Amino acid sequence: MAEYISQGVFIIPDTVKIESYASVVGSKEGEGNLGKYFDEIIEDSHFGKSSWEKAESRFQLEAVSLAVRKANITKEDIDIICSGDLINQCIGSTYGLRELEIPFLGIYGACSTMAEGLIISSLLTDNKVAKRSIAVTSSHFSTAERQFRFPLSYGGQRTPTAQWTCTASGAVLLSDTNGTIKIVGGCIGKITDMGVNDINNMGSAMAPAAAGTIQRYLNATGTNPEDYDFIVTGDLGIVGSRLLIEFLQKQNIDISEQHQDCGCLIFDSEKQDTHCGGSGCGCSASVLCGYFLPMLENNTAKNILFIATGALMSPMSLQQGESIPTIAHLVHLRKD
Amino acid sequence: MAEYISQGVFIIPDTVKIESYASVVGSKEGEGNLGKYFDEIIEDSHFGKSSWEKAESRFQLEAVSLAVRKANITKEDIDIICSGDLINQCIGSTYGLRELEIPFLGIYGACSTMAEGLIISSLLTDNKVAKRSIAVTSSHFSTAERQFRFPLSYGGQRTPTAQWTCTASGAVLLSDTNGTIKIVGGCIGKITDMGVNDINNMGSAMAPAAAGTIQRYLNATGTNPEDYDFIVTGDLGIVGSRLLIEFLQKQNIDISEQHQDCGCLIFDSEKQDTHCGGSGCGCSASVLCGYFLPMLENNTAKNILFIATGALMSPMSLQQGESIPTIAHLVHLRKD
Repeated sequence: MAEYISQGVFIIPDTVKIESYASVVGSKEGEGNLGKYFDEIIEDSHFGKSSWEKAESRFQLEAVSLAVRKANITKEDIDIICSGDLINQCIGSTYGLRELEIPFLGIYGACSTMAEGLIISSLLTDNKVAKRSIAVTSSHFSTAERQFRFPLSYGGQRTPTAQWTCTASGAVLLSDTNGTIKIVGGCIGKITDMGVNDINNMGSAMAPAAAGTIQRYLNATGTNPEDYDFIVTGDLGIVGSRLLIEFLQKQNIDISEQHQDCGCLIFDSEKQDTHCGGSGCGCSASVLCGYFLPMLENNTAKNILFIATGALMSPMSLQQGESIPTIAHLVHLRKD
Repeated sequence: MAEYISQGVFIIPDTVKIESYASVVGSKEGEGNLGKYFDEIIEDSHFGKSSWEKAESRFQLEAVSLAVRKANITKEDIDIICSGDLINQCIGSTYGLRELEIPFLGIYGACSTMAEGLIISSLLTDNKVAKRSIAVTSSHFSTAERQFRFPLSYGGQRTPTAQWTCTASGAVLLSDTNGTIKIVGGCIGKITDMGVNDINNMGSAMAPAAAGTIQRYLNATGTNPEDYDFIVTGDLGIVGSRLLIEFLQKQNIDISEQHQDCGCLIFDSEKQDTHCGGSGCGCSASVLCGYFLPMLENNTAKNILFIATGALMSPMSLQQGESIPTIAHLVHLRKD
């Protein structure tokens, strides 16, 4: 049974394993640095549907279906599915997963969703409420742009600190029995707001939340950055990643050797004109499932901290003069 | 430790107790049938803030603060808080709870949020990840109307099947040690969509989800409606409640004696012109905390099923021709 340490940090014994996982991305992500690692690249941004929102739902369903097929089971074998996304009322998830008829827990953590879903799914697997559970999320460039920024056809200029919302989905299937990669701990994030209010500079807004969560996990578990092969953040991008390393250095924690950021990895920012890198729930989800989990599987890495960060504002809250509250949830992945 | 039965149903042994709870409502709710039962009635719909969204955040913070005060503890004693609401990106919750610095899990279940939050909080309390946790949610008539329907100043006519979003919040503080009311089981809902697409008839859309969840829980636990003092639904309203009873009667389950609906209870529909009744996350949350939990506390009731229902569409999904997916989560409350 899981054990609580303090400040949102918990450790899990030998009870939660990753049975399978899947990543499905769009064409731009397929042309990026990690293109060859993803399970499926969908060239059509509408994925055969009549709207981008419906396309995003299909990305999510496709990732879940693929993870289920890889485990050689059927959807009836899944006890709980945990999902959310960036679209208002999380319709990417609710419509995408509707046909599965699996007990569903909807979550909202913005781009931290993959880590939040893994935390909830793994703890419900740990206390035997699920033998098998799935954590999944998605994002879509075109649904996010028109909701959070401008209609695409307006052709707005992007600022240098802006990031590019990934069209992608990632799904992780957890089991209480099968799998060699384990989830052995985590840290539930605290809402953190340092007063940043620039919607085009999410990395700077989210970096303090990531720093706080990493620091709490290292302190509570008595571990150091050198104990991990990788400390992977979700989508801080270039500016946010630099800030994260600086913040932690001021606390005498140096993660510069171990740190990787999914937002920095996924695109070739110069060639692909993505400015500070990728973002969106699907960014960290697909990079986790396409790139990092396979590294654990094939023993290239043994020990990874995965920290997905989310910005919890809305366009309306910014119009009302508010700053951007953020959060970072952490999951500790290990291959023995 | 919790035990999983099937189809989203689980039971919890003697591990999760309700230490305190609080309800805070607006003036119209205070003038309704249950006015005298709520802890606080806030006459100012802006609650001293510059926008309705900020007011909703304050309702949520007030409910949490009151529950914490009633337990005679401080916010530092709370390990996890689980919350969501109806406003885009759940800003009622994220801004409302920001200052607390408690590890936060954001959820989205529309009007099913209170039951979903209780399920997650109780299971995390059960497996010792939290000694104390809080489930909280809110809704606000004016934030919901302008987001889901029309600007208030437009003065749109309401249809007879429409419900009135409550301005209210409810918070439940769970403990692994203190309290006489227990959460002894639950059922995680499945997304259910029978093709209803009338945004002014949510009760009809949600009734099948409630019926399915109640049926699964009764079947899995081998219990009958007579085993419970009350079977309480969230906000099906008058039309939805009638449908729920009919659906279950066709399955030879008669809940007509035990059934109560928070949406039907909270207002005097005729006098208050609320048509089919109350709705919104805060409706079931405040009625649970103001009316039903005190009944368990003072031994007027011993055994209650609380089923909060949610409609998981968005204005955009309806504009795109979709029907309304719904969900119902169930929590079993008992006083020994």
